[in-house]
Formats: sequence, C-alpha cells, structure tokens
Amino acid sequence: MKQLLGGKGANLAEMTSIGLPVPPGFTITTNTCADYNAAGGQMPEGLMDEVKANMAIAEKELGKEFGSATNPLLMSVRSGAAVSMPGMMDTVLNLGLNDAAMAGLAAVSSNRRFALDAYRRLINMFGDVVMGVGHDKFEEQFDLIKAKYGVELDTDLNEDGLDELIVAYKAVYLDHTGEEFPQDPYAQLEKSIEAVFKSWNIPRAIRYRQINEITGLLGTAVNVQSMVFGNLGVDSGTGVAFTRDPATGENIFYGEFLINAQGEDVVAGIRTPQPVSEMVEWKSDMYDQLLEIKATLENHYREMQDIEYTIEQDKLYLLQTRTGKRTGLAAVKIAVDMVTEGRLTDKEALLRVPASDLNQLLLPTFNPDAPRDVLTRGLPASPGASAGLLSFSADEAVERTLKGETVLLVRKETSPEDVSGMHAAAGILTSTGGMTSHAAVVARGWGKCCVAGAGEIFIDEGKRAVTINGRTFGDQDLLSIDGSTGEVMAGAVPTQDPQLSEEFVTLMEWADRCRTLQVWTNADTPQDAERARGYGAEGIGLCRTEHMFFEGDRINNMREMILAQNEADRRTALDKLLPHQRKDFHGLFKTMGGLSVTIRLLDPPLHEFLTNDKSIQAELAQALGLELETVRTRIMLLHEINPMLGHRGCRLSITYPEILEMQVTAITEAAITCEREGIDARPEIMIPLVGTHKELDILRQRTEQRIALTKKAMNYEGNLNIPVGTMIEIPRAALTADEVAAHADFFSFGTNDLTQMTFGYSRDDVNTFLPDYLNQEILEKDPFQSLDTSGVGQLVEMGVSKGRSVNEDMKMGICGEHGGDPASIMFCHNAGLDYVSCSPFRVPIARLAAAQASVAQEKITKL
Amino acid sequence: MKQLLGGKGANLAEMTSIGLPVPPGFTITTNTCADYNAAGGQMPEGLMDEVKANMAIAEKELGKEFGSATNPLLMSVRSGAAVSMPGMMDTVLNLGLNDAAMAGLAAVSSNRRFALDAYRRLINMFGDVVMGVGHDKFEEQFDLIKAKYGVELDTDLNEDGLDELIVAYKAVYLDHTGEEFPQDPYAQLEKSIEAVFKSWNIPRAIRYRQINEITGLLGTAVNVQSMVFGNLGVDSGTGVAFTRDPATGENIFYGEFLINAQGEDVVAGIRTPQPVSEMVEWKSDMYDQLLEIKATLENHYREMQDIEYTIEQDKLYLLQTRTGKRTGLAAVKIAVDMVTEGRLTDKEALLRVPASDLNQLLLPTFNPDAPRDVLTRGLPASPGASAGLLSFSADEAVERTLKGETVLLVRKETSPEDVSGMHAAAGILTSTGGMTSHAAVVARGWGKCCVAGAGEIFIDEGKRAVTINGRTFGDQDLLSIDGSTGEVMAGAVPTQDPQLSEEFVTLMEWADRCRTLQVWTNADTPQDAERARGYGAEGIGLCRTEHMFFEGDRINNMREMILAQNEADRRTALDKLLPHQRKDFHGLFKTMGGLSVTIRLLDPPLHEFLTNDKSIQAELAQALGLELETVRTRIMLLHEINPMLGHRGCRLSITYPEILEMQVTAITEAAITCEREGIDARPEIMIPLVGTHKELDILRQRTEQRIALTKKAMNYEGNLNIPVGTMIEIPRAALTADEVAAHADFFSFGTNDLTQMTFGYSRDDVNTFLPDYLNQEILEKDPFQSLDTSGVGQLVEMGVSKGRSVNEDMKMGICGEHGGDPASIMFCHNAGLDYVSCSPFRVPIARLAAAQASVAQEKITKL
Repeated sequence: MKQLLGGKGANLAEMTSIGLPVPPGFTITTNTCADYNAAGGQMPEGLMDEVKANMAIAEKELGKEFGSATNPLLMSVRSGAAVSMPGMMDTVLNLGLNDAAMAGLAAVSSNRRFALDAYRRLINMFGDVVMGVGHDKFEEQFDLIKAKYGVELDTDLNEDGLDELIVAYKAVYLDHTGEEFPQDPYAQLEKSIEAVFKSWNIPRAIRYRQINEITGLLGTAVNVQSMVFGNLGVDSGTGVAFTRDPATGENIFYGEFLINAQGEDVVAGIRTPQPVSEMVEWKSDMYDQLLEIKATLENHYREMQDIEYTIEQDKLYLLQTRTGKRTGLAAVKIAVDMVTEGRLTDKEALLRVPASDLNQLLLPTFNPDAPRDVLTRGLPASPGASAGLLSFSADEAVERTLKGETVLLVRKETSPEDVSGMHAAAGILTSTGGMTSHAAVVARGWGKCCVAGAGEIFIDEGKRAVTINGRTFGDQDLLSIDGSTGEVMAGAVPTQDPQLSEEFVTLMEWADRCRTLQVWTNADTPQDAERARGYGAEGIGLCRTEHMFFEGDRINNMREMILAQNEADRRTALDKLLPHQRKDFHGLFKTMGGLSVTIRLLDPPLHEFLTNDKSIQAELAQALGLELETVRTRIMLLHEINPMLGHRGCRLSITYPEILEMQVTAITEAAITCEREGIDARPEIMIPLVGTHKELDILRQRTEQRIALTKKAMNYEGNLNIPVGTMIEIPRAALTADEVAAHADFFSFGTNDLTQMTFGYSRDDVNTFLPDYLNQEILEKDPFQSLDTSGVGQLVEMGVSKGRSVNEDMKMGICGEHGGDPASIMFCHNAGLDYVSCSPFRVPIARLAAAQASVAQEKITKL
Repeated sequence: MKQLLGGKGANLAEMTSIGLPVPPGFTITTNTCADYNAAGGQMPEGLMDEVKANMAIAEKELGKEFGSATNPLLMSVRSGAAVSMPGMMDTVLNLGLNDAAMAGLAAVSSNRRFALDAYRRLINMFGDVVMGVGHDKFEEQFDLIKAKYGVELDTDLNEDGLDELIVAYKAVYLDHTGEEFPQDPYAQLEKSIEAVFKSWNIPRAIRYRQINEITGLLGTAVNVQSMVFGNLGVDSGTGVAFTRDPATGENIFYGEFLINAQGEDVVAGIRTPQPVSEMVEWKSDMYDQLLEIKATLENHYREMQDIEYTIEQDKLYLLQTRTGKRTGLAAVKIAVDMVTEGRLTDKEALLRVPASDLNQLLLPTFNPDAPRDVLTRGLPASPGASAGLLSFSADEAVERTLKGETVLLVRKETSPEDVSGMHAAAGILTSTGGMTSHAAVVARGWGKCCVAGAGEIFIDEGKRAVTINGRTFGDQDLLSIDGSTGEVMAGAVPTQDPQLSEEFVTLMEWADRCRTLQVWTNADTPQDAERARGYGAEGIGLCRTEHMFFEGDRINNMREMILAQNEADRRTALDKLLPHQRKDFHGLFKTMGGLSVTIRLLDPPLHEFLTNDKSIQAELAQALGLELETVRTRIMLLHEINPMLGHRGCRLSITYPEILEMQVTAITEAAITCEREGIDARPEIMIPLVGTHKELDILRQRTEQRIALTKKAMNYEGNLNIPVGTMIEIPRAALTADEVAAHADFFSFGTNDLTQMTFGYSRDDVNTFLPDYLNQEILEKDPFQSLDTSGVGQLVEMGVSKGRSVNEDMKMGICGEHGGDPASIMFCHNAGLDYVSCSPFRVPIARLAAAQASVAQEKITKL
C-alpha cells in the first residue's frame, strides 16, 4: 500500500501487522495531501477530527496524554512519499511539549535537563521546519548563551542555561513569526501536518522529482507517531542489532545496547555500548522478546534485518527494521544457510549475494582491527591489501624481488614496458591515471593490488622518494595500500588471508547449475590460466600476445623487428621471437587442455614497445648496424598523435604480414606439439580491430595459408582445426557485422575499445572530465566499468543480430573489462552471448552474475 | 546485347548498325564460350564452319582472301566479356599471315619491311598468348639479332635482320611447342579462338572476378575482326579526333592525322601529325565523310566522341568510338550547347558534367603550355596553382607577406598555431600529412593551394633550406606548387585566371531549379562568407569559432584564460576576448544578412592554443604572475595521449561553463546590435561533440539562460530567436538520436569526427596505413574524402530517422568535409537531409551535385 501510505507509512504498518511492538501512531494518506493541494491549500474538512480520534487510541495504548502536565505524550510528524525523496521536509520531533508538558516530562523522567532539551529542540525545529524561521537565528542565541556559561559543547550546557535558552528561542520565534510559540499541542500538530502537505510542492521537491523523473504520485503521506524515550531511567534503554552476524553471517543475535540512553548515543560513541548478549543480565525478558522479534522478522522478511529498538520504562519498542548490510562472506553464508533453513530456494539465494561482493572473499585483506596510519587516498583500482618497500622503476622492482624483498612499485603511471616490474611487485601505486589506467587494468587482470591516481603523492625519482602530505618515504620505507578503499598507509598493516567457505562452494554449484552463459577468462600466462581454471573458467576468451614480448631478451628482438629496415631484417628478428611464442602457447594449451584458448594477434601500436632510454637506443643501433640518430628518428616517426586510433591491431598485419605469419606459425606448431604429447589443445585465433570485412577476408586467408604451410612442414595430417574469428570493437564492425560474419568463426566483443570509440572517450585521458560527468549526473556510471547499454549496448546487439543473420550458430562472447561486471553480464546474457571473459579473479563473480541473469530472466518469462 | 556479345562486340555491332564504316568481322557469343567450358574444353561442333561462313562475308566485303599469297586478309582476335576484365587474354593481331601471305602483303603494300614486321609480330604474339611460349624467349632472339646488326631500336632493324628474326622466332616456337608455326590460317584462327575461351578460367581472370565481385556471367565473347592498315601507301593514313574541342568544348571537329601511318604512330609521337582540318587539302572527300561521321555519332550517342580511324587505300574505317575525355570548362560548354542544339534536356545536361570538375573552373591554374621543371610530387591536397619564395615558419610567412613578398609556407606539417601564416602565404607545402591533414583541410576551406605529404622533401629549418632529390632551395628561391596534381616545380610557372563562362551560369541556374537540397558553407570570416555567398551559399552551416582565437593579441588572452588558476581569472581573460568575438560575429551576420549563421562553440582541446616556445611561455608567466616552471607544468598537464578523444567539444563547456557563457553573450550581443542597425541576423548555436542527451540538456539550458540575461542587459524586447542545435559526430549521439533530439532544434552531422570514431582512424595518423588499405582494395575510397555509406552512412541514417521520430520537421544538415563531395552529397540527398555545408570554393560543385542527386532520384522514382 505504498502508493497510499508512502514508503515509511507502509513499512510501519507492516511491522505492526506482524505483531511487532511499534510506537503507536497513524498515517494520513497521500490522497489527503492531493485533496489539500487540489483545494488550493485548504485542510480537508474533518481531518483534524480523525487525527484526534487516532490520537486518543495512541494515548490509551501508552497511558499518556497529549499535552499532559503529568505524563505527556509526545509525537513526531514525518513526510513519506511512495518513493523516497530526500529533497522534502524534515522531521518534527517532540510535538506536544509546552511549558506545562515540559514540567510533566521532567517529573516523569526524573530528568529536568532532558525535558528542557527536548523542549528547546521542539521550538527550534517547529520554528525552522514548519514556520520557516532560519535555523541560524536559533543558533546565534545558542552561541551567545554557551559563551555566557563558558561551555563549548551543546551537551555541556546546564539546566539554567537551557531555561535561559528556551526564553531566548521563544523570543526569536515571536520576532520572526509575529506570534507566540503555540502552547496548544493540537495547534502544533495541525500546523506540522499542513507543513508536510505544503512541502510536496516546494521548489526543491519539484526539482528533485524532475531530476529523478518521478511522476504519477499523488502527494506525500504524513506519519504521526508517538515518541518513546530510552533515557527515562535505569528501566529504559536503547540498542541496535542485526539478526545475524554481518561480518561472518553466523546465525546469532548480534548487536549492542545502552541503558538509560537515546538511540543517537549508541551511534555517537560518547558512551561505550554493551554487547546485546549481556542484556540477559539486565532484563532477560526483554532479551527473550528481542530473540522472538528476530525470528518474526526473519520469517516475515526472509532476510537478515538491521533493527533499532528502545525500551521505555520496561516496554520494548521497535523503531526501525531494514535489510542489514553485510560483508561478502556473510552474504554468502546467510544466503546458503537460509536455503538450509528452508526460508529460501537456491535460486532466491543466488539473487541475495551481490556478485561483486565475492571479490572480498578472494583477495587478502588488511586485518580490520589493525590500526591504520592513513596518509592519503587514491582510487581503489584493484582490490587487495599489500605492503612493501618502495621501488621506483620496473627494473628495480624485478631486481629487489629476486633478492627476496617485498616491494611496491611506485610510478607516476605505468606503461607496457613496466609489466615485468608490475608483475614482480607486491602492489602498484600510481599518482596519476584512473580506474581504467594501464596500471589498474593490468593489476585487476592479475588480481594484484593497485591504488591508482593518488594525486597527493609527489614522486621524486631522482631522489628516490615520495612525499605525501609533507611526510617523505624512501626506498627502505614500508607503505601499505588497500586496493578496496584506495587508502595509502605508513608501515605494514597486518593482513589476513581469504578462506573459501563451504557455503561459497555450495553457492557456486547452484550458480553453475542455473546459468546458461559460459564464463571464460582473460589470461596471458599459464599461471594466470591455472588460477582462472581453479576459479572455474571454461576457456580463455582473450590471450593478449603483446605481453609476451616484454619478458627478458624478447623485448630486444621485438625492437629489432620494429626498427628493421626491410622485410628480410624483420623476418630475422621475428625468427628469434618464434620459439618464445611457441613455448608460451604450449604452456597455455597444456594448462587449458580440453578448453578453448582464444589468442589475439598483436594489437598495440609498435611504438609502445620502444623506449626513450638513450643507452638502450644506442645498444639497439649497434645491434642493427644503424646510426643512433637513425634509430631515434625512426622511433620519432612511429610516434602518433592519437595512437588509440592509429596503426595498430589488424592494421599491423595488413602492412606487416610477417608478424601475423610468425604468430600463426607459433600457435600451430605449439598445438601440433601438444597433440603429439596427448594434450587436447584448442587454439582459436582472434583478429583484433577489424573495421571492414575485407581486412578479415585477407587476414583469414593469410592465417589459413600459414596454418596449412606449418602443418605441411611438420608432416601433420591430423584433424587439428583452428577457428579464426574477430573482435568487434570498432563501431563500423558492429554496423557491418553481417559482412564481417561471412569471414568469421566467432565474434568477441571488445567493449573497452568499443566504448572508447562509441563515446569518443580516450581511456587514458578521460579523467580530465569524467569526474565532472559523474558529479553532474551526465553519466550514471563510468562506462568503462559498466557497459553503457543504451549506446554501446545497441552496437553489441546489432553485432549479435547481424552476425547471426549470416551464421545462425556463431559463437559470440565479450572480452572487454565489462566481462567481469555483474550489470554488464546481465546485459550479455540478455543479448544472447555465449560467454563472457573476465580476469581470473572475477571468474567466480561472473559465474554468480551469470546465474543471477538466468534467474532474473526466468522470473520475467514467468510473468 | 552486352550479355551475349560482350562489351566490345556490342559496341562494334552498334557502330555498324548506325552505318559507320567498321572493318568487317563477327562476334562469337558468350554462350559459345559457356558451351566450350561446359563440354570440358571441347570446341562446339560446327563452330568453325560458321566461322568460315562469316570469314567469306568479310573476304567479299574487303576484296581480300584469308591466307592469300597475293592480297591476304588479316584478322584480329580479341576477348570481350560483358564487363571489362583487364585480367584476361590480350589481343592476337595479324592472324592469317604465313610465309606465302607475308609475301603477298609485301607486294600489295609495296613495303616488304612492313610485311616482315607484321609476320614476326604474329609469331611472337601467337606463340606467347595462344601457345604460352614466354615472351622473353622471343625477346632474347631479337636482342641477339639487333646486336648483330648494331641497332638499338626495333624500328631500326632492316629487312635482312627481320628475315633472320623470323627464322629465329620460328625456331623458338618449334623449340617450345614441339610443333612448327602453323602455316594454315584457319588453324591459327581456331587455336586463337580456343585460347580466348580458355582464358575465361585462367587463375588471374577468376581472381579478378572475385576481387571485383563480378558474378553471373556466362563467359567471354570472341571478336574476330579484319585488320586494316593505314600504312599501305600515300592513299592510306590514320588519325584520332574529338567531335568537339576537349579543352574548350567548342563545337568544331578537332584532331590529328598522319598519312601512310599506323594508329600507334600518332600516339607514339615519332612523327608529328597534322591538324585534322588540313585533311581537306589531302582528301577532301574523306574529310567530308568524317564530318558526316561526327554528326552521326553525336546524333546517336548524344555525347562528344573520341574516335580512331584509318584510311586504307582510300577507304575510311572507324576503329573505335568512345565518350571523349574533356576539361571541366569543356564539359560545361558541351552540356549546355547540346541543350541549345536540342540533343539533351537540361536535366540530362546536368548529369553530363562531373560536379568535381567545376573545381577547375574556379581556381587559377598553371598555363598548361608553360614548361614545368617538376622536382617531386606530393598529394594534391587543395587545388590551385601557386608560386612563391620559401618561408619556414608561420611568423615568417606573415612578416614577409606584409613586406609585399609572395611566399609559400613550407612545413613538415601545420598546426592551429600556424593559421595566420597559412592564411598569409600564397600556398602551403608540407612534407608529411595526408589529404585530410590540418594543412589540407584548412587550405581547402580557404580555397588556398596546398600540396601535402611530399615525402621526398627534406626541410632543414635550421639552415632555412629544403632539399628535393638532391637540389637545394633557400628562402630566396621560388617554387611552384600545383594543388591539382601535387607537382612541386622549380621557379615560378606562369598561371592563368579562371573566367566564369555564360554556360557555367546557365548550368548553375538549371541546377538550382532542380535541386531540393540546400547548399550552405563552412566559413569563419566575413571574407570567406562573402565569397561563399557569391558562389550561391544559402547559409553558414559551420562557423568554427576557434580560428578566431589565433589572430593578433587574442591568442595571448586565450592562453591567459587556459592557464588561469581559478574561475575568476578565467573570466577576466574571457572578458578581454568577448569584444573580439562580438565583432567577428557582427561581421558574419552582416555579410550573411537574412541567412542562417550556425556557430559552433569552442571545439578543440585547449592545449592546441598553447605553445612550446619558451620565450612566449616566459611572457605568459609574467602576464599571469606565475613561475615559468608552473606555466610549463600546466602546459604539460594539458597534454593528452589521444587528444582527439579527450577533453574537447562540449566537454569544455561542461567543465568550464564560463567559456560557453562568453561565446553565447558575444553572439547575442552581436545579433541584437545587428537588429538595431536593420540587419537581419540569424544566428544558430551549435553544441559540438555531444555523446549523451544530458550534455545537450544542461548546455542548452545554460545557453538559453545566457541569451535571456544578455537580452535583459541590453534592454532588448524583440523577437530574436536563436535556435540551439547539436552536431552528431560521436557514434553514441547517432545511436541515441531520439534522446538527443528532445533537446535540439537542429542536427548537423559532423562526418569528419564521425568517420574517425566509426572507423577508429585518426585523421592525423591514418597515412601510416591508408595507402596500403587503398592499394589492397580494403577500402574503395579514402573515407575522409567520400562518406563511407555502408558504415558511417548507417549512423547518419539512424540519426535522421531517430531524430525525426521525435521531431518530425527537424532541420538536418552535414558540415563535415564530405559536404563538398558529390558522391556524399548524393547520399545526403537520399538520406533526407535539408542541407550540405561545404567550403566556399566547393559551393558550386555542391549545387550541381545536389541537382544531380535530384535528377537521379527522379529517374529511379519514374522506374
């Protein structure tokens, strides 16, 4: 009944209806608000009569009287539309207090200061929220009186001060409204209800509805609810609790309480609360009642609840219940336990765990109880918790790691040249670059901890030191970085290892039973592949061959190849790279035996492999028999203004067919060798950056010729079949997917580049404006993290339907970063893809998200 | 009957059927070839009988006999499919010669050398083309005998040598075929016909059909035609002629002839031919006959023809007729004249002039008769003919031009910093960059001559010299550049001015009557606008405001704005720019009074306005009260890895609203001032680089607020309405055009950027692979020159239909470089755009192309 009662009202009613002790009250419907506005701001006839009748019920239930000078009933008034609208009126508390009632409250609570404080709050709130007197006008008086009494904190002001304050507040009220503060409690209540009605059409509420496209609502409901107090003596108290342990998921009643206190005292941390289990010693009947409430709530909501309760003079009231926040670990355990308990079906349980939260289960984390000396905060680029000595270059990171040191690689930003150092380091910290910077993407791919774009870090490579907010750290100093929060901390914060729970395994089994979408992985090395397979990956959707060219000597051969003067020299250099590639592929095929390994041919622009280091350039020049100047000039000529849109991807294979030939030879040789060793190698060759069907036509032919030649050279006569497919990552490829499909065995949507080109955003530069775009709500999410379904998604859907119009059964997948993002996985499932490919550490997340997509679709189909 | 007779056969038949004297012959149909192949390479029964019957007719008509020892008839055999296929078999000439016939030919021609030469050619061609003996085998013998006789040229070998050569050729033939050279003329003919049949399925022919997607053909036809000779004495001759003057279009018979010569002699230039008019003195009857043929051909083809003819012993034969190539000037005159003559309707005439050829009428050209000392050839980036002294920087070009010198600006490449110098220079020559490089695009926009990417030019700025293929030129040397051919020449080649003919004016009138597509222009200055209006532009579709920020002091204010530390400093710098902008817009509105002026807000990334010049940086630092190092750092921070996809376009207005505010204020103030001066200003504001509807929503609101504020500040209460629209140049904007349209008064397709992003090609870098892509036929055309209708075109069509689904009458145009390309204009017409906008010099071309699109559509609709 949200439409009629508003969200808050409906929830209060629901709790009441399942027998929970909620402070009595009533809700004035949204219809009434509509009537008020339709009548041009006239309170509907008979409304206050109904209000009074309902007040009588509350008075009777609580044994108090509204406005009473002995045992006064206090009320709160809150707005509450069917959709949550933070732009609307705030709450008015303590309604019903006047001079007489204040004295009554003082007496009944044996706490005159409390009663005075409640009264001054009412005058302030009523004046501000209902009558439009500026809050600052009251604050001015408060400051004067605090100064007079020589106190700093509001809570330090004594009863005399509060007496004086109430006089001053009443004067402010009179001064700005022209009326005395109303002593008639029903006058207070009526004006408050009317103020809530009016608040429906104040400009900021209208604007809020416009911005959030909220339409079709009648108005706001008004919740009139009695106040209860946990600070009316030692038989009163207050607490917050979870129906299960939110950190571990254990099925225990978990929480805290304070005797003779108000709810805000628990939160504010002024007093230290006791564990809820100790309530037994104080009031065991109340504790038993709470345990009953736990059961009732979980039976009703079938979900772990987070509650607030107050005991007013031995009477328990539930003030709020809501779904409790929990860690990933707890989410999994609770979901699985609730299936065991018969509360949920396994499919429902799958929907209960936010897939991304599995991340927390898979990575080491800092011990949450350990102290943290936080220096600054960067972007949480790749989860994990790492501590290490500082190293300032990739080479240094490699060298010191070999010596047995644990180091963090600290760089302004990273580039492909740095990968060996990045791989060696325990974690990566950069001062520039965003969530999708090179450092971030590579680190996530490896599940390596990374904090990126920590702008307050000043790196002085010359001095081998970083300065962070005035503190300087050198190469023998330890820093810790938290990839889940972006925190950078001094020293080594202790970590704890993840343990995969039984419940995790169970949940994954259910997920695998449910899902239709396969989960593959992006992996370039046998180590990555093995890890991913351990996490349940069903194939490699993207093996980036370029990472293979940076290790050891290879980078020199690669550079010789790039700088070669002619095809013959190029081939000589490539011949040196061939055995390395073959070995790499052999390792991958072996690890992934029986599963597809999709190998992307060389993709990045060649200058990414070069270096500005003069001494390396000199070595190169010597190796190639060239003048240093010639080498430098050629490196300069390879520089591009927009390398992202330049000479890369399949364009390299068009202009330098010998690179493709080397790679295809290495793949075929490795596959044949595997077969002869009894390993079921299943390579697939993927041509990147195709924009026209003719590129694929030509390169597929070259690839197949080379496969045939290699088979012949190896006297191979078996059935090895190497499918040849393409990435769809250029808008034009998606637009003309029917033409492209004629030459492809499979499509793999490269949504990183597709997003770059569809939006016209360079991933490397987007941080200059993306923060503004998110702040101004131009974009809901970073489109590099979660697939833009309305724009980029159209191209993916177009690619799928046009591709399948030519080849009905064509295998289609996605291998962009989005393959590990749950919302994007949902999209991929609905778009009819066969698989998503993501980094090894995200494989479990993707398995769960894929299952959730299936369950969600089933639900819709059932409707 | 092309399908049956092939192209060549059908054409020969057509000439014969309109009574033209064609050497007798016959065509064997494509069906016959199909039969031959279907039968697995068996000559169809009865074929040679039919051939003999037809030969008899030819013999009778010519009074010669095939194989005769006294007056031999010689035949040629040529393949000819329905579609021209250069990959197929060559011609075999002189069939029917044997030892005896050779003697007969010697006698009848009174030229034994001629007969011997014909015979040796037959043995060579027949051996090579029909029997597969390598041509080099014959060449070897020829070389030996030429050496023996001490001659260098084939034509210098005397009769003895030729006698010896024939013996040697026969030996080669025997050696490689195992048979004697056939003396039976019908054996020669039959083998030749069969060879043509076979050639249909040779690999290179099959490959040619695959590449060019030629399908559905039966096979090739075989044309058997008698040979005629113009070198059989003084009553023989040969010539080529045009039915009108191909340079001017004048309706005269225009051509050349040679007495006692073969066709190839006219072409080879060994002898100097006489003007055709002089034939009157030699054989006035033949001349009269040719004039009759001219009339017959033009009546039949309704088009200027280019013919080849031969007179063999007083008998005239027409060997070929085809549509004659002509200059743009001639094309216009011929088309208009033919309407006057009643041969064509005006709509047909419009289709007869290739729209791009109008270019030639509008730009100064080098005198075609002047000698040219061509040093190298670059890309013909912007037509025109310029000569000047060499200047090596923009500043130098400005300075020397002010001194009255005429200079060419010679740069490796140009950037926006160079525009003042580019504008000042008489022409631009770059050593890198392509047809769409900065230099090329800007130059074309101005109609300024530019040769780009002349890779053989080595520029040494230090020495102020260029070296081209070993020759060096300094700042006092003159070079000439031809923007239509890409030629770079030493010295100043004389030019001639264009004169717009009466016929041009008439043709343009017809074009304007026919077309529905409006033609607007891209213009940034009143000068450009005035020129464009003179050429018939109906509005400004793109005024790039950034060009306005480079002139004089403005660049300093601009740099101050960019480097400002905060919004207040930025506003101060912008306040200085405001009066300049206002003046610029005022000038444009005045020039374009009554027509729309579409102003694009600031588009390029800010770092394009900065400089690496240390002394200017130092000045800036002083002006801004900053350390030089601070200025340098900020310039460095503005550097982007892919500026094309970075912080530019509307993204600038989102993050720096004050730039938009300044520009909108200047536009509104200028428009109101105009109105008060009685000028009908019609500004439209265009937001660039929109990718999401929310960008446009926000910026439109800011724009409208600013317009309202400015009106108020100027006490303006009139009806000035400034439409606000957007460019559709990001794929996502096209994909979500329905959302975007909700906030736009018009769409302008920015097909330059749309092409960059749809293909993933950076215009600045595309030359690293584009040449290979065109060579390997991956792309048919440079997509930056002619709109890629199958990919980018889909997005344009999507933008139109989605946009109009929301706003049925929305005005839509195109303002990319494609707006001046005839094929792209045809696409725009069909896509339902309202206007194309192109550079001033292309306005007439666009008017004609738009008319052609209308006529073509009418034709299709009629079908």
